[in-house]
Amino acid sequence: MRSAVELRHAHRLLNHGPTVLVSTAHGGRQNVMAAAWVMPIDFEPPKFAAVIAADTLTRELLLASGECVLQAPTTLQVDATYAVGTHSGRDGDKFARFGLVAEAASLVQAPLVAGCACWLECRRLAEPNAEGAYDLFVLECIAAWADDTLFARGDWQFAANGPRTIHHGKGGGFFATGERVQAARG
Amino acid sequence: MRSAVELRHAHRLLNHGPTVLVSTAHGGRQNVMAAAWVMPIDFEPPKFAAVIAADTLTRELLLASGECVLQAPTTLQVDATYAVGTHSGRDGDKFARFGLVAEAASLVQAPLVAGCACWLECRRLAEPNAEGAYDLFVLECIAAWADDTLFARGDWQFAANGPRTIHHGKGGGFFATGERVQAARG
Repeated sequence: MRSAVELRHAHRLLNHGPTVLVSTAHGGRQNVMAAAWVMPIDFEPPKFAAVIAADTLTRELLLASGECVLQAPTTLQVDATYAVGTHSGRDGDKFARFGLVAEAASLVQAPLVAGCACWLECRRLAEPNAEGAYDLFVLECIAAWADDTLFARGDWQFAANGPRTIHHGKGGGFFATGERVQAARG
Repeated sequence: MRSAVELRHAHRLLNHGPTVLVSTAHGGRQNVMAAAWVMPIDFEPPKFAAVIAADTLTRELLLASGECVLQAPTTLQVDATYAVGTHSGRDGDKFARFGLVAEAASLVQAPLVAGCACWLECRRLAEPNAEGAYDLFVLECIAAWADDTLFARGDWQFAANGPRTIHHGKGGGFFATGERVQAARG
């Protein structure tokens, strides 16, 4: 079940550095790409930074609509994640081609990718300098959701034998989010 | 053993989103803090973005020296990582206090923290707007190193029963980098 996550907890959804899918929509077109280079940059309102290369359809749709969804795919979605990271939506709709299902978001036109662990509906905060120099976009999260079997009580609840978020190494080699290690109070 | 990593592979050291220690030095003072919000933003020359809050000693020393080292601690260092993320160097040297050992870097004054999985010697690319608006620093990596039992042939080689990098969830709760999941060619 997809449940709302309080915005003050939204940074925790990506705090551990998982690979993200960025979905966008504008003018009857929609797209999804994989991005390893996405991170929180502020708590409340929650903001995120994402690198989105200059020639991508995702960037075109993000600039046109001012919106996107960031979502963390799971260990059950590594093939589709790698595929949407290595093919362009300019060559045909990637949802259909790679078996991803688009569902309606609550506040943005960009779709939610079904089966992910969490979803962050975002609007672009225009930063032309950072976008131009580094392909770096600043996004404010305006609605957040998580699969409540995976994220509950403001924290991830991964089971060793269940789906977990993933972290890209190189060339389609991912690492699952591993076991919990609790630090002592310093 | 610490071995050099080719700069064109430096992004792979942090591609999977681990928690990072940021070390700095200037004018006889040194410091180290934990940062979950660090990521690659470019391949070659390798560049990274890091959020470093306005009131920190790390930021003071980074601005004064123009340099820092980013390094990924391991599952053996979770207590020290959490401790240097929750205490200020203004209250006393954190290396001594939390049992961290500083070693000389090759090109920057900032020290390498012994026992980490990788080290990226960086210089600040001044971006006053992003620094002022978002505490977001752009860093160019000019030398990279890794523990060659953990990173070899351009890729991480973690063993399930050995030290691995860590990913911060919340409140000192980390996730170890988990098992490898290879995507099929899309």
